[in-house]
Amino acid sequence: MAKKIPEKVVSRLTFYHSIVSEFIEQNKKNITSSQLAQRLNIDDSQVRKDFKLLNEVGRCRVGYCTKDLKENIEKTLGFSNKRNAFIVGAGHLGLALAKYDKFDNYGLNILALFDNDPLKIDMQINEKKIYHIAKLPELACELNVDIAILTVPKPFAQDVADFLIESGIRYIWNFTPCVLNAPEHIKVWNENLMASFLQFACKEID
Amino acid sequence: MAKKIPEKVVSRLTFYHSIVSEFIEQNKKNITSSQLAQRLNIDDSQVRKDFKLLNEVGRCRVGYCTKDLKENIEKTLGFSNKRNAFIVGAGHLGLALAKYDKFDNYGLNILALFDNDPLKIDMQINEKKIYHIAKLPELACELNVDIAILTVPKPFAQDVADFLIESGIRYIWNFTPCVLNAPEHIKVWNENLMASFLQFACKEID
Repeated sequence: MAKKIPEKVVSRLTFYHSIVSEFIEQNKKNITSSQLAQRLNIDDSQVRKDFKLLNEVGRCRVGYCTKDLKENIEKTLGFSNKRNAFIVGAGHLGLALAKYDKFDNYGLNILALFDNDPLKIDMQINEKKIYHIAKLPELACELNVDIAILTVPKPFAQDVADFLIESGIRYIWNFTPCVLNAPEHIKVWNENLMASFLQFACKEID
Repeated sequence: MAKKIPEKVVSRLTFYHSIVSEFIEQNKKNITSSQLAQRLNIDDSQVRKDFKLLNEVGRCRVGYCTKDLKENIEKTLGFSNKRNAFIVGAGHLGLALAKYDKFDNYGLNILALFDNDPLKIDMQINEKKIYHIAKLPELACELNVDIAILTVPKPFAQDVADFLIESGIRYIWNFTPCVLNAPEHIKVWNENLMASFLQFACKEID
């Protein structure tokens, strides 16, 4: 990403990207700011303001050209900077994330999963293999992976995080409900489902 | 929630809550703002500023009393306002969310799951039963549920959302990668994993 874009704008740009992709699948050549705004229940002017952050906005006679708009969002959000990652924990959440095809489109390549359950080792999920966790240090080095998506059960979260850090992982996207202890040079991004829910519940539900 | 609390503060309060709960489990009676700050890699002063939003801060001789602090965060974030919800889609993500015990603590009661796969119907997951989706309108009415957590595969997302709305669901927490079409009186909260990742990737990874 060339410029620093506020978090909420990044979020909206990914939604615009989804809607525009859908329009392209339906062979629609144009999209208007009202069509985008209506779908997200926001104001037209918000959409136009967000688009000022795009490198080129791809405006055409009737609204925006869907193809150009999609490309510009991808360029602005840096989808082409490919990053390799491992999923650590092949439970329901790990498997759900391994099957989440959108990661690929957005520049996140999940190369493999890791678990300690012998029954899961060597299984394939969405063309990604599940390895024993003991193989992680070797594969992280070999495949040059420094991002791990952590989806192990809560009681193991800290121990597994420590092991990842020893194995050369520098970025942990933490889906466990633990707040991990990590040295300062390790970046931990806590995915906070409960905060999302509380926001939703407080804002919208009387 | 009595006062309007900014999104980022809600997020941090839930993290403080996790850390304080862990201290209580370890029988620790006190916690300092530095202990909280260090764990989240933020500044002490941020923690103290956030605590000004709590109803009572539970300050004691050495930092804060863990028990009081936990209760105050719960009160401030309204964890005691119980809300009932259904999970719609019993794939990996639906099952992962059904097993996410934290929802209970935070006031979200998942009462049941729904799917259309005959092999899954009547299975139990974390003491919650999976019903055929056709049963949803009746059960939503009977159990007074108007929140649905949508975790079906992308191609079915819009049709299932339409069905939920016809069935009396008014709040949809959307985990599918679709931006749903919904009438204005229906509140849709789009969980945006990709935006999280892009934030993480842009801020932290060179």
